[in-house]
Amino acid sequence: MQAPIAAYLQALHAQLAGANAGELASYIPELTKANPDWLGISIVTMDGVAYSVGDAEQLFTIQSISKPFVYGMALADRGQQAMSEKVGVEPSGDAFNSISLHPQTGAPLNPMINAGAIATTSLLAGRTTEAQWQRIESSIATFVGHPVTVDESVYQSESSTGHRNRAIAWMLKNFGIIEGEPMASLENYFRQCAIEVSCRDLAYMAATLANGGVNPLTGQRALPAEHVGQVLSVMATCGMYDFAGSWLYEVGMPAKSGVGGGVIAVIPGRFGIAIFSPRLDAKGNSVRGIEACRRISRDFGLHMFQQVRDPRQALGRVYTGADAASRRKPVGPARAHLQAHAHRIKYLSLHGMLAVDGVEYIVRRMLGMAADTDCFILDMNQVTGVADSAALMLHQVRRTLQIEGKPVVCSRVHRRAAILQPLARASGAQDRGFLVFEDNDLAVEWCENRLLQGMGSTEEVAVPLADSPLLAGYSPEMLKLMDSHMSTELFGAGDTILKAGEAGDGRVFFIESGRVSVLVPLDEGGHQRIASLGPGMEFGEMTLLGQTQRTASVVADSDVRCRVLHVNDLEALAQQMPEIKIRLLENLARDLAVKLRGATQWIAALA
Amino acid sequence: MQAPIAAYLQALHAQLAGANAGELASYIPELTKANPDWLGISIVTMDGVAYSVGDAEQLFTIQSISKPFVYGMALADRGQQAMSEKVGVEPSGDAFNSISLHPQTGAPLNPMINAGAIATTSLLAGRTTEAQWQRIESSIATFVGHPVTVDESVYQSESSTGHRNRAIAWMLKNFGIIEGEPMASLENYFRQCAIEVSCRDLAYMAATLANGGVNPLTGQRALPAEHVGQVLSVMATCGMYDFAGSWLYEVGMPAKSGVGGGVIAVIPGRFGIAIFSPRLDAKGNSVRGIEACRRISRDFGLHMFQQVRDPRQALGRVYTGADAASRRKPVGPARAHLQAHAHRIKYLSLHGMLAVDGVEYIVRRMLGMAADTDCFILDMNQVTGVADSAALMLHQVRRTLQIEGKPVVCSRVHRRAAILQPLARASGAQDRGFLVFEDNDLAVEWCENRLLQGMGSTEEVAVPLADSPLLAGYSPEMLKLMDSHMSTELFGAGDTILKAGEAGDGRVFFIESGRVSVLVPLDEGGHQRIASLGPGMEFGEMTLLGQTQRTASVVADSDVRCRVLHVNDLEALAQQMPEIKIRLLENLARDLAVKLRGATQWIAALA
Repeated sequence: MQAPIAAYLQALHAQLAGANAGELASYIPELTKANPDWLGISIVTMDGVAYSVGDAEQLFTIQSISKPFVYGMALADRGQQAMSEKVGVEPSGDAFNSISLHPQTGAPLNPMINAGAIATTSLLAGRTTEAQWQRIESSIATFVGHPVTVDESVYQSESSTGHRNRAIAWMLKNFGIIEGEPMASLENYFRQCAIEVSCRDLAYMAATLANGGVNPLTGQRALPAEHVGQVLSVMATCGMYDFAGSWLYEVGMPAKSGVGGGVIAVIPGRFGIAIFSPRLDAKGNSVRGIEACRRISRDFGLHMFQQVRDPRQALGRVYTGADAASRRKPVGPARAHLQAHAHRIKYLSLHGMLAVDGVEYIVRRMLGMAADTDCFILDMNQVTGVADSAALMLHQVRRTLQIEGKPVVCSRVHRRAAILQPLARASGAQDRGFLVFEDNDLAVEWCENRLLQGMGSTEEVAVPLADSPLLAGYSPEMLKLMDSHMSTELFGAGDTILKAGEAGDGRVFFIESGRVSVLVPLDEGGHQRIASLGPGMEFGEMTLLGQTQRTASVVADSDVRCRVLHVNDLEALAQQMPEIKIRLLENLARDLAVKLRGATQWIAALA
Repeated sequence: MQAPIAAYLQALHAQLAGANAGELASYIPELTKANPDWLGISIVTMDGVAYSVGDAEQLFTIQSISKPFVYGMALADRGQQAMSEKVGVEPSGDAFNSISLHPQTGAPLNPMINAGAIATTSLLAGRTTEAQWQRIESSIATFVGHPVTVDESVYQSESSTGHRNRAIAWMLKNFGIIEGEPMASLENYFRQCAIEVSCRDLAYMAATLANGGVNPLTGQRALPAEHVGQVLSVMATCGMYDFAGSWLYEVGMPAKSGVGGGVIAVIPGRFGIAIFSPRLDAKGNSVRGIEACRRISRDFGLHMFQQVRDPRQALGRVYTGADAASRRKPVGPARAHLQAHAHRIKYLSLHGMLAVDGVEYIVRRMLGMAADTDCFILDMNQVTGVADSAALMLHQVRRTLQIEGKPVVCSRVHRRAAILQPLARASGAQDRGFLVFEDNDLAVEWCENRLLQGMGSTEEVAVPLADSPLLAGYSPEMLKLMDSHMSTELFGAGDTILKAGEAGDGRVFFIESGRVSVLVPLDEGGHQRIASLGPGMEFGEMTLLGQTQRTASVVADSDVRCRVLHVNDLEALAQQMPEIKIRLLENLARDLAVKLRGATQWIAALA
């Protein structure tokens, strides 16, 4: 089955294939050897998938499309401040080969015109022009995702006819913009323009800019994130020469064209696009390249100023500890206290890449709920990352609420750096940052413990067998008879009492004192705690319903004392006094019904 | 408790309050009367909340900030094509009061310079200049959210000194750009510049552009969505006069300043920002306005080319009909067939505002799953809207999969126009579009029915009492005894058999033939179907555990025949033969345990 984008690109290719306006670039003799009918289109997604159609694998020379990438390298090498003294960022309103130097400083108006690009290449890191060339070659390879080569004949052709560029280079030397020997730098510039790429390669380069500087296929960083916006800004205002205003107006995406017939367009966070079609218009832009971008922008709704967002989507479900309590079920007054206050625990399920607008909404909701809340749990499971500015805002609201005695904790961060690092940067070294729990259950339990502390005590007393919910309604006679058929077992903290997968041996455990965890093995290894049980609660009771295998492990969290009933003894007792079994089954069914109701409510809250 | 943005704005205000660089505008005498120390900052969110600090309520004249809004009105009135013949969209590289007309056509280079703005005002709809003025006044009021007035003394001051603008207007008349009487149009232009606004008003105007043309507080549309991107593009390239390249590079947001001291900045889909500080730099921009935008952009990470997105966040959980079956539980071969094939039903939970990049990912995942899938359910509960291009892509994949016999249905659209309308536009009139279900359960049941059709038959036969799961393990003698204490009840389709909230009367129902729905009332009114039960299943059984109130209603979906047991009769039988009750309770507890396990798995899949 064909993907809709693949089908779209095929149709687009068919529509444009017949168009033959424009002329091959002629100022570099070697470029006239291109086949004017070549047409390739590639789109690369943010997870590195390429959709390509037509002559997308045909190699050609990158030409001016190298300029924004080399400008990015220079920003990384020299820093924005130093670069701003050498090369401006204002559109010139002139053609690509205009000299356009600032009348006082001699600085080229921007790095997309030849003068600016030649200056930029001369400013790369490297003690020799050789080393500077290595910088260009390896950086472009990181953008593309594989090594690149130079078309030597195009390079020779450009070098042997590039007299205007020689004049520009000497003029830049005259103004002190080029610091070293200008002619060797200029050869690097000619070579950089003659790097061979395919349309697909260019789309990966564009996608790397769209992806914040990281190649979305290889995962390699090609450009520090802080310079990506600067490169794209210059592309937006100067990338299409004196067509920039109309381009932004109609197509609305940063772009760059080259006289080799390539055009790239970058839709930040969404797509990298490249078109290869060598026929150029009078401004030196690929005719079909421009038309393809115009159509893709319109048909896919990619104009950068027509994006619709809704910051509220950063916040998914909000529910309370009453909707979904922890699986630990206290008894007695603790239970009543929790039931009365569980709604004061608030879960917020956060979504996606958290930026400042989404977090502003989340924080506003939290402050609105604060009067009715004791603890907040931010579930980060669906979060893909946190912007620094958003992390700072989360940090600030945590501090504000902390002062009010209302902790904010996180769950399910899963050790992801895209979340942890911005949060750590926001907190600084003096602050321990967010308390983070591996799962929601542990987070809720922590919040419940705080609620219980508020009540005065969390200490759990031993619960005699008579108070076991499973034996509710037993007469003293029934209890005595039952008790006489039971034994006591003791476990130390850490002991495995039952093991998942083992055959059930018929024992049912009634906890008198201590606490155990119920753990189920996970498919991906490890286990998840599904319950924490304390005095008055039972485990292993599914044996009563004929279950022959233990489905969960039970581990003692402290010293544990249990009364133990064997199912065979229960059968014998039932012969003697049926009411003993009937009551037990009724209580068991009732407990299951309550748990089922809780689970159903939880599902309703989640779904 | 103070919101972090409010605290941020206070700190920003304090940092900037001492700065006193720049001069009041002097070319309009009335403007020199402003207090040079005024400083207001406002930020408006996409749900219409304003954060303001300082002199945010002080009124001042809008001046050139009116230009992009009036340009939007002209686009709406004349259309983009007609406007492009009268006013260009290229940055002039010149100062705001430059004449900058195209040498051949006389068209002003862009609508942000005075020449372009004067031409734009003259091109508004309206047979008279009076009517054109009404158009301006009412449209600005929609952007602001309340009626606006003109500062008559500033208007008079501008009109009495605006000789350069008179020259420009006559030049535009000379080139045929202004069609009517130029002097009356020019008075409208002077008046539009003298409209009084506060910083807060301007932030709502900016937020309306950020919100796709709809005022986020009033919900009123101020500008057709298709022109918003065009207005913002012109602001991005021409909004800050000859500072546009550096502005985009450093601040990275479409903006517009006015000599009254206002600056607006628009972050599409996120925020509208306004600053009011009357001291201007040599280019006519508010000194502290620019600095505030620079800092907000940096501190909040709002540079439009530094946005990080992850299209994958459009897709939440993916799970199958095996993870979460419908609540209808068939018996016999149908049950076995469903169990074997339920994984071939795929749920996809979609998230947020669906644009083409997110849908590309969703569609790619669907095509990847297609070989192992019979039906897709797209859960739209968390979707806030669908872009037209994304709707088209969803439509295409639905058609592609339909041809393969794999339906794609939607659930929980909740009649929202932001989802339904784009889907309807994508499908066109010939296509019935997506089948939409009110809840996931109905959607899964529909898919299950398709699976059962694949098996040959969906007809359900009557199930005798002996085959009831609740009576599993009964001996013939026990069955006979039980049966003799039961009655038969018949119901017609639509009959309410049990009503939620009513006292339980002790009856337990065993369905022999027909089908019922179990409905729970919702807090917000109406009800949700939580189960569909058929032959061999029981309801009302919680009475056996002492439940005294019916928690759900049960309605007959067809003619229904039940055997009915009264709990008092069961007690009598248990005296006679305890095994009858013990088996029943065991079966009930086992059923509850199975349901609980299913619910727990569902929670794991959801959470």
